[in-house]
Amino acid sequence: MAKLGYMGLGAMGSAISRRLLSTDHELTVWNRTREKAEPLLQEGARWAESPRELAARSEIVFTMVTDTAAVKAVCEGPDGLLAGLGPGKVYVDMSTGSPVNTRALADSVAGVAAQMLDAPVSGTPPTVEQGRASLMVGGDEDAFERVRPVLEAIGPNVFHVGPSGCAVTMKIAINLSLAVQMLAFSEGVLLAEKSGIPREKAVEVMLASVIASPMVRYRGPLVLGDQDESWFDCRMMQKDMNLALELGQRLGVPLPTTAATNELLTAARAMGVGDRDFAVLFEVLASMSGLGGGVWVAG
Amino acid sequence: MAKLGYMGLGAMGSAISRRLLSTDHELTVWNRTREKAEPLLQEGARWAESPRELAARSEIVFTMVTDTAAVKAVCEGPDGLLAGLGPGKVYVDMSTGSPVNTRALADSVAGVAAQMLDAPVSGTPPTVEQGRASLMVGGDEDAFERVRPVLEAIGPNVFHVGPSGCAVTMKIAINLSLAVQMLAFSEGVLLAEKSGIPREKAVEVMLASVIASPMVRYRGPLVLGDQDESWFDCRMMQKDMNLALELGQRLGVPLPTTAATNELLTAARAMGVGDRDFAVLFEVLASMSGLGGGVWVAG
Amino acid sequence: MAKLGYMGLGAMGSAISRRLLSTDHELTVWNRTREKAEPLLQEGARWAESPRELAARSEIVFTMVTDTAAVKAVCEGPDGLLAGLGPGKVYVDMSTGSPVNTRALADSVAGVAAQMLDAPVSGTPPTVEQGRASLMVGGDEDAFERVRPVLEAIGPNVFHVGPSGCAVTMKIAINLSLAVQMLAFSEGVLLAEKSGIPREKAVEVMLASVIASPMVRYRGPLVLGDQDESWFDCRMMQKDMNLALELGQRLGVPLPTTAATNELLTAARAMGVGDRDFAVLFEVLASMSGLGGGVWVAG
Amino acid sequence: MAKLGYMGLGAMGSAISRRLLSTDHELTVWNRTREKAEPLLQEGARWAESPRELAARSEIVFTMVTDTAAVKAVCEGPDGLLAGLGPGKVYVDMSTGSPVNTRALADSVAGVAAQMLDAPVSGTPPTVEQGRASLMVGGDEDAFERVRPVLEAIGPNVFHVGPSGCAVTMKIAINLSLAVQMLAFSEGVLLAEKSGIPREKAVEVMLASVIASPMVRYRGPLVLGDQDESWFDCRMMQKDMNLALELGQRLGVPLPTTAATNELLTAARAMGVGDRDFAVLFEVLASMSGLGGGVWVAG
Repeated sequence: MAKLGYMGLGAMGSAISRRLLSTDHELTVWNRTREKAEPLLQEGARWAESPRELAARSEIVFTMVTDTAAVKAVCEGPDGLLAGLGPGKVYVDMSTGSPVNTRALADSVAGVAAQMLDAPVSGTPPTVEQGRASLMVGGDEDAFERVRPVLEAIGPNVFHVGPSGCAVTMKIAINLSLAVQMLAFSEGVLLAEKSGIPREKAVEVMLASVIASPMVRYRGPLVLGDQDESWFDCRMMQKDMNLALELGQRLGVPLPTTAATNELLTAARAMGVGDRDFAVLFEVLASMSGLGGGVWVAG
Repeated sequence: MAKLGYMGLGAMGSAISRRLLSTDHELTVWNRTREKAEPLLQEGARWAESPRELAARSEIVFTMVTDTAAVKAVCEGPDGLLAGLGPGKVYVDMSTGSPVNTRALADSVAGVAAQMLDAPVSGTPPTVEQGRASLMVGGDEDAFERVRPVLEAIGPNVFHVGPSGCAVTMKIAINLSLAVQMLAFSEGVLLAEKSGIPREKAVEVMLASVIASPMVRYRGPLVLGDQDESWFDCRMMQKDMNLALELGQRLGVPLPTTAATNELLTAARAMGVGDRDFAVLFEVLASMSGLGGGVWVAG
Repeated sequence: MAKLGYMGLGAMGSAISRRLLSTDHELTVWNRTREKAEPLLQEGARWAESPRELAARSEIVFTMVTDTAAVKAVCEGPDGLLAGLGPGKVYVDMSTGSPVNTRALADSVAGVAAQMLDAPVSGTPPTVEQGRASLMVGGDEDAFERVRPVLEAIGPNVFHVGPSGCAVTMKIAINLSLAVQMLAFSEGVLLAEKSGIPREKAVEVMLASVIASPMVRYRGPLVLGDQDESWFDCRMMQKDMNLALELGQRLGVPLPTTAATNELLTAARAMGVGDRDFAVLFEVLASMSGLGGGVWVAG
Repeated sequence: MAKLGYMGLGAMGSAISRRLLSTDHELTVWNRTREKAEPLLQEGARWAESPRELAARSEIVFTMVTDTAAVKAVCEGPDGLLAGLGPGKVYVDMSTGSPVNTRALADSVAGVAAQMLDAPVSGTPPTVEQGRASLMVGGDEDAFERVRPVLEAIGPNVFHVGPSGCAVTMKIAINLSLAVQMLAFSEGVLLAEKSGIPREKAVEVMLASVIASPMVRYRGPLVLGDQDESWFDCRMMQKDMNLALELGQRLGVPLPTTAATNELLTAARAMGVGDRDFAVLFEVLASMSGLGGGVWVAG
């Protein structure tokens, strides 16, 4: 039994925390707004007053926040996470930010004799709840082996991919396909629909075909209009596309489909639907196809 | 029990014929080169001397050939398939060509009191052999219902998508995602690899992620170099991308990811690997990334 | 003094005919609708009753029609241009069509002991009127030398670029830059405008910069809304982009900017402005940028 | 007669300084490496020991450095330019960096009662020497009017485009067309060449056509191999493309041709020619077209 700490209780963070609570570990949580922690506190989690206190009380402490800036904000300062870390502790960052920053942060963590792993999660909150998420882990092997049983409680597929920063890189390398696959799927649905095939039928057939990745199976039905919440909005998606393009420039990998798709995410934001799930790319393309009255764009 | 005829015994055609043979129907076959038919003849199929004879002997006759020109070649002329059709027969074309030509051909078939369905197959020869292929069907509902049990013997998912030409359209709408998903996947693998993650590890993690469509799971391992044959080469893939782009222009659907990817298929052909499976897109991108000595391009 | 024939009196054809009339040559014209020929007839041109008669009366006969299909339509049949050609005559086709068809037609022309040149014109009707158009010529050198003085009367820059079909190819190779430059220009104007720089100022500065090709100087002001006619509409522009993309596939040249731009021409047509000058690409991009009330799209 | 200061003596900075020297103003210069200043010192310029001293001695002080980071480096610190500014002085930054940083810097300058203008130059060193460069200016009108005569000594076209940051934005909006026009030009040249037209002829004809912007006329001949120096290398060009793409995301303007072209600049860098003029895009495309032995890539 280990003492765990979790910080960042958005949809994903809450789902992961809940899985950790369901094991026999002890869980302490912290979030910028305590309100979001209430359900977990009622289920048995404890509350820490600051990131520092969270880290001080835990053997393994997790963060899952929006981006690189948010990671820095919770780590630095007198009440920051770094101030509460110490020898033997492991800090696991599940956020997707710049791999360069991950490596810099890992150095700071090593400076207080703790260890850091980057461990982004591939999946959506429902995937996590069903225990089907997969995790990529970057950092030292021995820290990974210590934390592994806890990570396997979150999802069955846990991959150690390399040194610090490698898991974030892997996540970015995967995520670019999310938006590209969604746009290619939308191109196909609109071709079918404008040929006279009902949109529902086109989606049904595509979901039964060889292009139906879990992402396509999950988001395909959203183009039929029954979307009720956004798991991953255009802004977040574009943040990851930008991380991919930056990495591509640094490493020398041209990314033609990523670049083409990213411009339509810009169009989505310009059209006022940047806060919708990136499945809204379908609507952007529909509007370029002269179709008004989209599910979301026209709303 | 029905009398079936099959024409076009490439890798896919042979796999489908074999499934038809394994039912209790009677199968006659024809192919431009008889040699490719020999294995099937040994397994019990009969040989017809011409497309006309094949159609004359069969209640339901199938074609699976390269493109629109090839369909015309086997249908027309005194020994052509049309000359052997007649009242009550159903002609099922499984090729992927232009939907405009499909509709024209359906009219010719109606002219001899037979019926035509377009029924392209989504899958690869191994998928067909395992009984996991899916079929889309365009044409009259009643002809569809008559042929349905035979089609279900090929694959469990059989979708009637609309009138004549709709199934070919649906196939094109799906196929554009094949090449786009492959290129996006390659972008990700190269990002990971140039970041220091072994290519094998990157592929393994991506195949366990939400972007792993059946196509990605099937072709992903090919970038590791263990490809021994081409199921769908760059020329065939580009033919389908061109059909999609033509359809997009006719119907008014911009196809940004299709267009970007199609130019790399042109590059593949210019680099001399047009006859390799379109998974070779990975090599094209690797060469643009300054990586020499690719698995195929350098060979 | 030579006997000249001209067929195809659209805006360009009329401008070129007028320049030919202003030399001391004798000009006969034919057009599908005689009405368009009236102004030229009043200025001294003669009328032929058919393409055949036009060719029969002329030493050098020109065509300038929409596309490959239109060229075939005026050349073939008992009253077609080919029927009126004969030994020693030169047929000059100024249309932009497929180079493959140009070569086939040149063979037919050689079959009646005449010679064919492809001689597309680079410029707009006003450029032609001002004597600033340039001409590219494909075909035999000796036929070119015979016709050269007449061509120089149309524009001062006359280039013999190679055998039959080469001039059409050269025209296509130039024309792809028209649309691409227009779209890149639009990207810049919209960036400036959304940054707070008045659109007029942005256009003024760009027209004084190193990116100001004659095309940009001519079409740039159109984005300010003072366009009153279409010299080259989206349909015609897309026809040339498609010819470029076909050629690129045949020859093995990837065309990334052509392909990306062509999809926005599809969007233009889908949005209902396919019959406007391709400068309307600006409006398409503005609409993707969330700007309503465009000059043309909203009209 | 005014006291002028100039900092940043690369190819452009030196050309501009030389023009300022040729007026009757007094010129002081500073550069990180004094060596580059020697020619100017011999022609009458004076030397300052630091950016602070340069600003202290001058009424109008100019900077022309690589990017935003370099501007900050020369402005900040005890020996920085800001420390030498004071009431009534005007600081003119001719660098191309982020407009956001320009506005922040303008605020700092206002804090010491001086004024700042952003004034990037459109042109190449030879254009500047020939007095044909154009300048865009952002900032307060009154500061602009004071500096205007000095700017007109650099180039005849001086445009005040708006408040602080607008000129840098305008420059970025223009520069994206440089790379896009170059790539579209390359697509055309390669189409012509692979059709059998000699490359020299193709370039000659294109330079006489409506797509021949000053940029195309200047860089077109470089694809014939007679390039001896790089005015604007791929790294600098990509920096500006990235600034455009960032701006596009912030303002909501999709940039399809910019994005597609930028990925080929990444390819150029991956292929090891990132330090060549961006005209090397031609070579990148040639290599994608299966043409080995390029002028630069193969060298």
